[in-house]
Amino acid sequence: MPATIQFAASSLVEFASAAFASAGLPQTDARVVASDLVRANLRGLDSHGVSRMPMYLERLDRGLVNSRPQMQVTKVAGAVAHVDADNAMGFLPSHLAMDTAMDLAADAGIGLVGVSRSTHFGMGALYALQAIERNYISMIFTNSSPAIAMWGGRSAFLGASPIAAGIPGGTSAPFVMDMAMTVIARGKIRLAAMRGEPIAEGLALDADGQPTTDAAKAFEGVCLPFGGVKGSVLGTMMDLLAGAFTGANFGGDVKSLYFDHSEPQNVGHLFFAIRPDLFMALTDFQARMDEFNRRIKSLPRAAGVDEVLMPGEPEVRTEALRRAQGIPLTDNVVADLDALARDRGLAPARPMT
Amino acid sequence: MPATIQFAASSLVEFASAAFASAGLPQTDARVVASDLVRANLRGLDSHGVSRMPMYLERLDRGLVNSRPQMQVTKVAGAVAHVDADNAMGFLPSHLAMDTAMDLAADAGIGLVGVSRSTHFGMGALYALQAIERNYISMIFTNSSPAIAMWGGRSAFLGASPIAAGIPGGTSAPFVMDMAMTVIARGKIRLAAMRGEPIAEGLALDADGQPTTDAAKAFEGVCLPFGGVKGSVLGTMMDLLAGAFTGANFGGDVKSLYFDHSEPQNVGHLFFAIRPDLFMALTDFQARMDEFNRRIKSLPRAAGVDEVLMPGEPEVRTEALRRAQGIPLTDNVVADLDALARDRGLAPARPMT
Repeated sequence: MPATIQFAASSLVEFASAAFASAGLPQTDARVVASDLVRANLRGLDSHGVSRMPMYLERLDRGLVNSRPQMQVTKVAGAVAHVDADNAMGFLPSHLAMDTAMDLAADAGIGLVGVSRSTHFGMGALYALQAIERNYISMIFTNSSPAIAMWGGRSAFLGASPIAAGIPGGTSAPFVMDMAMTVIARGKIRLAAMRGEPIAEGLALDADGQPTTDAAKAFEGVCLPFGGVKGSVLGTMMDLLAGAFTGANFGGDVKSLYFDHSEPQNVGHLFFAIRPDLFMALTDFQARMDEFNRRIKSLPRAAGVDEVLMPGEPEVRTEALRRAQGIPLTDNVVADLDALARDRGLAPARPMT
Repeated sequence: MPATIQFAASSLVEFASAAFASAGLPQTDARVVASDLVRANLRGLDSHGVSRMPMYLERLDRGLVNSRPQMQVTKVAGAVAHVDADNAMGFLPSHLAMDTAMDLAADAGIGLVGVSRSTHFGMGALYALQAIERNYISMIFTNSSPAIAMWGGRSAFLGASPIAAGIPGGTSAPFVMDMAMTVIARGKIRLAAMRGEPIAEGLALDADGQPTTDAAKAFEGVCLPFGGVKGSVLGTMMDLLAGAFTGANFGGDVKSLYFDHSEPQNVGHLFFAIRPDLFMALTDFQARMDEFNRRIKSLPRAAGVDEVLMPGEPEVRTEALRRAQGIPLTDNVVADLDALARDRGLAPARPMT
């Protein structure tokens, strides 16, 4: 295990906000992106947290991501809108799209928003959590740069393309799902590579199509889809609906965040918002969610399991813990952030004392 | 391999129509259900074809499924409707719901229909194919009787609950997805049990929670979710959205098709229909689908693979073959159908000569 240093969430948000502002983002936008990254750390998804800052900042500095986008929202049907993201950091059009989908759903019961000309939007659960705050059911699709093969192929073609979803709970934990089409998230392979740690067998092939446990080689190769053909088929749907359907890049054209600086990514996303009170009163729906929660808590448990949890419940607990005790960052991530601070003339992030 | 006998699709449809009419279904409903079952056989999904007839007929005879339902469609928001299926055979409210979702989507861009008080709806791809015929994108969720564990549990709680989806193609094959949350469909384990064949390791546990390759024991035990925790999480979403949200049974309350005759199932389904021309002209979208198809055909292939296929393309080919050459039914399925014919005073299905 690499050594870690504890940071308060607020300290990381301040630091990241200053960094993104230094790349030209308006203060409010910089704070949204910073808070979103730190939210990933808080939930224990360190692969999608502040460790990504150097990459995001490089893309901003190179002009591949637009720090001052003019995003356009166009209503295209009674319950559907489109967002042209103007190459903004993907977090910004995604929050806008999720809000727009909820506004549409308030009237029509369901709202759908397609986003094109976007970029990497971070942790998909961000938008499910946003919807839960307003008491909406949500589904979030995205495509991403090639990471896994089409079923029957042996080269990276489909993205890791996470699918996320949220269902508000009653008094109990809401349902929050956020899963990449890979056996494990590509970002986790990248983090292992940064930490110099090996990965388990069965997760990835190297660039020559050979199985590997070397995280760095795996990151340059192809990830294996989860569940074999099923993960690959879901990944195909993500690319077709989030990419081909919305007007974004698709079919292998989304550029790598790390390895391709030739042009903007033109990632596509698709946001569904659904009112939870369509088929019964909200309180009745909430009672059903609570009943589901009660039942899973009393199920016979697998060996070594103390409690059956709602999907998303482990992350709620991690967030509570990390808000209280701080976020552990590994030495090399801290070194990256310190280097970034020096380069940009910023005060470094201050660890907890 | 058990011996098989070839049947023309039309001959099986005639036979199944007569059988369902003998159970009290109106002729038109009987023919819909019969055609749907034979469609599953045509596509090679024999687990969801005519082999299920004895079970469906028994449930009709016992009054657990209503042969003369009064289904109610209620519009509950601009883009959303509800179908009370009145315990009909699930095929009937599902076709109605998919059509209603498309009618809603024609105006609003997207349509959502929740179904409650339904029963097993057969092969989920049926409704994706129905939507493709009218040039709509679709997603179909359902719940079903307990087959897999919640993640962390060791008893059957969530259904195998397939998720299906369809995306119309251009001149090339459409995308059609239909996948259960189990490693393999529960119906395939049942078919193996009927055939007296073993199943592979890693698919199921017996009723005592022990791994088994005995198909009959597996059918009474718990299936393992595909992709480990990810299949279990998707299965949780199916139960919450198709079941808890629509007003149907959920949380383990959907009764087994085979083992529980205490009351109607009250299965829930959720149908999404989306116009493909929301973000560009239909011809542009079709061109994108064709481009995706072109690209996958030229991908480097995995060892032993002759052609990379669009999800759903293998089933299109099987259907063409079986329409030309007939549907192979195994001896024991034929024996079941013959017994059923005798019991109900029907002419047996006539094999091809």
